[in-house]
Amino acid sequence: MAKEKKLVEAITSMEEDFAKWYTDVVIKAELIDYSSIRGCMIIRPYGYAIWENIQKHLDNKFKATGVENVYMPMFIPESLLEKEKDHVEGFAPEVAWVTHGGNEKLQERLCVRPTSETLFCDFYSNIIQSYRDLPKLYNQWCSVVRWEKTTRPFLRSVEFLWQEGHTAHATKEEANERTIQMLNVYADFCENVLAIPMIKGKKSDKEKFAGAEATYTIEALMHDGKALQSATSHDFGDGFAKAFDIQYTDKNNKLQYVYQTSWGMTTRIIGAVIMVHGDNSGLVLPPKIAPIQAMIIPINQTKEGVLEKAFELKDRLKDFKVKVDDSDKTPGWKFSEQEMRGIPIRIEIGPKDIKNNQAVIVRRDIREKIFVSLDEIEGKVAEILDKMQSDMLERARAHRDAHTYVAKNMEEFEHIINEKPGFIKAMWCMDEACETEIKEKTGATSRCMPFEQEHLDDHCVCCGKPAKVMAYWGKAY
Amino acid sequence: MAKEKKLVEAITSMEEDFAKWYTDVVIKAELIDYSSIRGCMIIRPYGYAIWENIQKHLDNKFKATGVENVYMPMFIPESLLEKEKDHVEGFAPEVAWVTHGGNEKLQERLCVRPTSETLFCDFYSNIIQSYRDLPKLYNQWCSVVRWEKTTRPFLRSVEFLWQEGHTAHATKEEANERTIQMLNVYADFCENVLAIPMIKGKKSDKEKFAGAEATYTIEALMHDGKALQSATSHDFGDGFAKAFDIQYTDKNNKLQYVYQTSWGMTTRIIGAVIMVHGDNSGLVLPPKIAPIQAMIIPINQTKEGVLEKAFELKDRLKDFKVKVDDSDKTPGWKFSEQEMRGIPIRIEIGPKDIKNNQAVIVRRDIREKIFVSLDEIEGKVAEILDKMQSDMLERARAHRDAHTYVAKNMEEFEHIINEKPGFIKAMWCMDEACETEIKEKTGATSRCMPFEQEHLDDHCVCCGKPAKVMAYWGKAY
Repeated sequence: MAKEKKLVEAITSMEEDFAKWYTDVVIKAELIDYSSIRGCMIIRPYGYAIWENIQKHLDNKFKATGVENVYMPMFIPESLLEKEKDHVEGFAPEVAWVTHGGNEKLQERLCVRPTSETLFCDFYSNIIQSYRDLPKLYNQWCSVVRWEKTTRPFLRSVEFLWQEGHTAHATKEEANERTIQMLNVYADFCENVLAIPMIKGKKSDKEKFAGAEATYTIEALMHDGKALQSATSHDFGDGFAKAFDIQYTDKNNKLQYVYQTSWGMTTRIIGAVIMVHGDNSGLVLPPKIAPIQAMIIPINQTKEGVLEKAFELKDRLKDFKVKVDDSDKTPGWKFSEQEMRGIPIRIEIGPKDIKNNQAVIVRRDIREKIFVSLDEIEGKVAEILDKMQSDMLERARAHRDAHTYVAKNMEEFEHIINEKPGFIKAMWCMDEACETEIKEKTGATSRCMPFEQEHLDDHCVCCGKPAKVMAYWGKAY
Repeated sequence: MAKEKKLVEAITSMEEDFAKWYTDVVIKAELIDYSSIRGCMIIRPYGYAIWENIQKHLDNKFKATGVENVYMPMFIPESLLEKEKDHVEGFAPEVAWVTHGGNEKLQERLCVRPTSETLFCDFYSNIIQSYRDLPKLYNQWCSVVRWEKTTRPFLRSVEFLWQEGHTAHATKEEANERTIQMLNVYADFCENVLAIPMIKGKKSDKEKFAGAEATYTIEALMHDGKALQSATSHDFGDGFAKAFDIQYTDKNNKLQYVYQTSWGMTTRIIGAVIMVHGDNSGLVLPPKIAPIQAMIIPINQTKEGVLEKAFELKDRLKDFKVKVDDSDKTPGWKFSEQEMRGIPIRIEIGPKDIKNNQAVIVRRDIREKIFVSLDEIEGKVAEILDKMQSDMLERARAHRDAHTYVAKNMEEFEHIINEKPGFIKAMWCMDEACETEIKEKTGATSRCMPFEQEHLDDHCVCCGKPAKVMAYWGKAY
């Protein structure tokens, strides 16, 4: 019995079932595949190429700020994980435990890193002696494991890829500056490369990282009105330094504790790209992150000279990531595949075009057909990709702004949550009881207290007492 | 009590204790640090930068042959590991087992991947249906875990970094071609970039990979006369395909099993760079892989104009990886550090040099002092680095050739092993009994049956029966 390749079927529309649309896209665009291990995904070449592009951009940005890459062990001895009290409470319930090596039972259990603060602290306590050793600005690219019950491709998985930066500084101020600096690196990257606008702000105490003094976050709004925490940057103060005894001799020969930070972005951000830019034909990739920026699709490719012209075009467009689809599928089929994979533009060229010394460029996002003279195609492709990149950011920003609401009391808050999913801006007394009450009543969590504050009202949206801050709220991934 | 940075002490000489020299170098050149987890090392920025350069070179070479990167889960369910009989026998005794996720005991144990054949096979059985889906040429960069009892930095560690390529092909011939092609990629990389000459050949049945039909290897000779297996490439035939039911429909609509390969290079290769090129002053890095190619060391740097000139020089040498050491250490100290870290050249510049419009370039390997006019420094640096790169390869080749011996009987074999460590070329009947006997008597293993065969004798070095092949033998890391 011969197996046959399945035909590409239409995907669920996002209006019908957004969650189903999402998983249809990740599978049909061949970003991931499910594996035999619950909650662990296989990142396929097309999905991994997006991650490689993300890595390249971020890694360059990190290095430009003096960051160096290292590699730490993937295992953490139980006793090391337990050194910082808040940290172990936050992570111990969701780690995978190695208990046996070969045929022997280990004397001490090892967890597979859920994050590496404890390993970096242990390392720093060995290598930091003097103020001359500071700052330490280390980062690693690796995978981490968190034993999540419910998983979704990219958004929440048992194993995921990320980078985790860990720095140690002589002063509290310097550590805080680094925390904000890296948050800005993430936000700029998301806006300028991924075309996703971000709200920058501080997490509430309830939502901050286990062991952090303060957690900063960038938050994006997805097409369905749910928020997605896109990267975080943590200021640890000297809490970890005290737990791990990381001290240095200052210029006056006095022992001082270091101040630390950590910051990370994960493969989750690919989920954001899908849910901010995708449409009912599939993925839409911003040109700056697309593994293939243009697909040349020959029309009537068996006609003399068509394929030659297509490849000639590819050679001329060597400044871009271009492929020719010369498979024996129909042009219509090729268009569907290019659209499903979110390739920013397709370039159609057939016998008639060649006669007219032109090609037809179609933008993936707005499907605009542009007739371009072959004489000026290099410049036109650059122009169209640039325009598409900036249009995508503006469209995402417009969508977010149109779905950002103000609530002054719980009636308004609940009405918005039920009727108009999106970000809710509301004043808050900063009491955790109100945060908990809002979550219980509406399912919304505090996303952040944005750096750009507005005074919407004098009173807390929940308890009516004097408000201290404006926060963004929303249901979140 | 103030902690003080320890002064750099001299390293053990390689003649005195090669093993101690090796660990001194990896620690003092700040390539790695030991971690709290037995057998797991921390790769520090300087060591990791070397690995990043190796990755960059190899990844480009892989992609040029059509290979695509993916990411597979780090866990393998026990039942999946057990599917191929030879494979599980080879690996099960040395894997780490995850038995608990959070607070729950898992229904099935998961091992941390020691290698990912089983995961790729499981994946391939899902995505390969037709001849149109072939070949699949996938690779991943990741870390793997093998529960080794005795470990040494880079050479043998519980966790190490590597790449593992896994391919699936329609025919046996194509799979075999790919196996050899990737072996050649490794050998060319080692020779042209790492300046390490390699012996290419086939492993004996006893030494081949668990589950492979044939394993090909590249073998290098270290400074102490021991061999180091530097990369391997495995031809699996259709063994895994049958165990995992990976079939495709061919052009005649018949079901066929695929043929597979896998191939890998690990952080172990950094150990080879150290043990082939290093000397009693520390590391010596080939220019093409060095994270820093030239260190500019100002002499009398407090004198007016010296530091300015040093940084001006750095700017002019922007085609190279150059740093200025403007710390407040003495020049002598800076020289020692540059030598310990194996930075290919140092450029000394002081007031006298500036007056004479010159700089002094010192090659790390042969310590040759070259006076260079500042007018032509860019060209001279390029020339000196090129020459150093090729000299290093030639020196390594000469060392290897001078330590490659011929044995025609066991008396000669044992004499060489005891007196003149190195490669031994000897004829072999290909009987495993002789291989075992040689190992028991001398500690030497068959390194490979080289592609370049020589007829040294008619008889097996061990049993005296008719010889079938010439093999390289040696003690190995």
